[in-house]
Amino acid sequence: MSQAQAGDATIIDGKGFAADLRSGVAQQVQALKDQHGITPGLAVVLVGENPASQVYVRSKAKKTVEVGMESFHHHLDANTSEHELLDLVQQLNDDERVHGILVQLPLPDHIDEDKVIHTIDPQKDVDGFHLMNVGRLATGDLDNAMVPCTPLGCLMLLKDQLGDLSGKKAVVAGRSNIVGKPMAHLLLANNCTTEIVHSRTRDIAAECRDADILVVAVGKTRMVRGDWIKPGATVIDVGINRLDPEPGEEKGKLVGDVAFDEAKQVAGAITPVPGGVGPMTIAVLLANTVTATCRQHNVAEPARS
Amino acid sequence: MSQAQAGDATIIDGKGFAADLRSGVAQQVQALKDQHGITPGLAVVLVGENPASQVYVRSKAKKTVEVGMESFHHHLDANTSEHELLDLVQQLNDDERVHGILVQLPLPDHIDEDKVIHTIDPQKDVDGFHLMNVGRLATGDLDNAMVPCTPLGCLMLLKDQLGDLSGKKAVVAGRSNIVGKPMAHLLLANNCTTEIVHSRTRDIAAECRDADILVVAVGKTRMVRGDWIKPGATVIDVGINRLDPEPGEEKGKLVGDVAFDEAKQVAGAITPVPGGVGPMTIAVLLANTVTATCRQHNVAEPARS
Repeated sequence: MSQAQAGDATIIDGKGFAADLRSGVAQQVQALKDQHGITPGLAVVLVGENPASQVYVRSKAKKTVEVGMESFHHHLDANTSEHELLDLVQQLNDDERVHGILVQLPLPDHIDEDKVIHTIDPQKDVDGFHLMNVGRLATGDLDNAMVPCTPLGCLMLLKDQLGDLSGKKAVVAGRSNIVGKPMAHLLLANNCTTEIVHSRTRDIAAECRDADILVVAVGKTRMVRGDWIKPGATVIDVGINRLDPEPGEEKGKLVGDVAFDEAKQVAGAITPVPGGVGPMTIAVLLANTVTATCRQHNVAEPARS
Repeated sequence: MSQAQAGDATIIDGKGFAADLRSGVAQQVQALKDQHGITPGLAVVLVGENPASQVYVRSKAKKTVEVGMESFHHHLDANTSEHELLDLVQQLNDDERVHGILVQLPLPDHIDEDKVIHTIDPQKDVDGFHLMNVGRLATGDLDNAMVPCTPLGCLMLLKDQLGDLSGKKAVVAGRSNIVGKPMAHLLLANNCTTEIVHSRTRDIAAECRDADILVVAVGKTRMVRGDWIKPGATVIDVGINRLDPEPGEEKGKLVGDVAFDEAKQVAGAITPVPGGVGPMTIAVLLANTVTATCRQHNVAEPARS
């Protein structure tokens, strides 16, 4: 790996990539309609009035419609019983117009999230959280797994940047079930030498410094410093942290888990925050819904240009 | 980690550990009988006449009876249809005397192994191969996962040798779904910095040399040499390879994936082949059957002394 010139890291344009991906998904949706008479449908279920969840759900519904899919929105009262929610999920499992089901988390405390997730038909589990899908990803069965959106988006950015990942040393910082672990599974399936580091790791800086590919998902503001990065490495920053507002600001600035200004002096390529990984998640959700649709109808997935 | 004196590696006695584990399991079985009137039962299903499989199955049945469990043996003809085998598995799922079901692999070509494994009730899947159990292990839900026997046996040897594994650098060589990947999940769940290396890894010797804990499951005779090992490291050799017979020998010698004579000069502790990991697998199968029994009856697992 060649040493990058100081300060010349490529800034990976996740926002642009996500927009292109959504265009590609729109083409796929058109092809499914034209060639098979199928309209992919995504159902989103929201329980209660969590303001952040409401924003996410609205944004998902808007983009679902923009790519030509059918969007089914179910907003249930915060007092909805677990039984009622499970009934709704079962209805959506049985509804042929619905190919993807997303239950927005977190759910109110009186509802068992695991129980709800495991009631979703694994084939419609576009979040990839059902244990059957976790198992498929862990065993490398990518032809049948539904893969969690954020790590799959990171993988797409990496492949776009680097091409074949085979043999590269990948270090994932953070071991959450939503990002860190599925990311490691994807990197391993793509033939990377794959390592997970975490809060108990003895010398985390030294481990990171060995990575050709460094994916950071620890939820700690600017934890990864410039001298944690191997010169020329590709750095994917999954963190989204809000700083305290500066005087005169209404809201604090959004920053990642990587000290961007330092890191871009060393890295070969790096995602910014915002505008890096963040916009990928919904775009991949839509792509997952197309994948789920094609599998359920047993038709080949149309190409994305 | 202190540098070990040349040649003084502790030889890890897997055979002795496995015998102690079986004694502990026998105590648990007695306690379940005495305190709850429950006799754990393990069903083993063999299809066809594979000679190696017949040896394994006989050995499992013998040791099952030795620890006081009930052993159910089903030997089906090589021409058994998939449908008949699935019916049998369903019967065993429904049989309250059966707490663990093991279908000996490989199955004849006309039977879909995945379909058979996924017909086993995950709670009775004492091999830990069902995707629900893979998913539970991958998400760190060890209270509910059934964990594959060989990697769980390796973990037991490591904890016996080292105590708390937290913060240690663990490298797993090999990424099979039966050993390498579940081993990595177990090490991560035990707070190791965890890395998987494999045939596509660029400098596998250098990666191994960084490990405090090195688990090797690559199926290549003596691939790991002495200079791949960090002085003082704990080395677990999962490989079982048979050498060509020397003149005058009837059968070739069994050796591992690690060049033992070199490695023991460098390592702090190492498993031999034979007598290391090998004897652990059946002992852990019996321990898993007790775990499965206790979960199915919702009783606390009796202590093993």
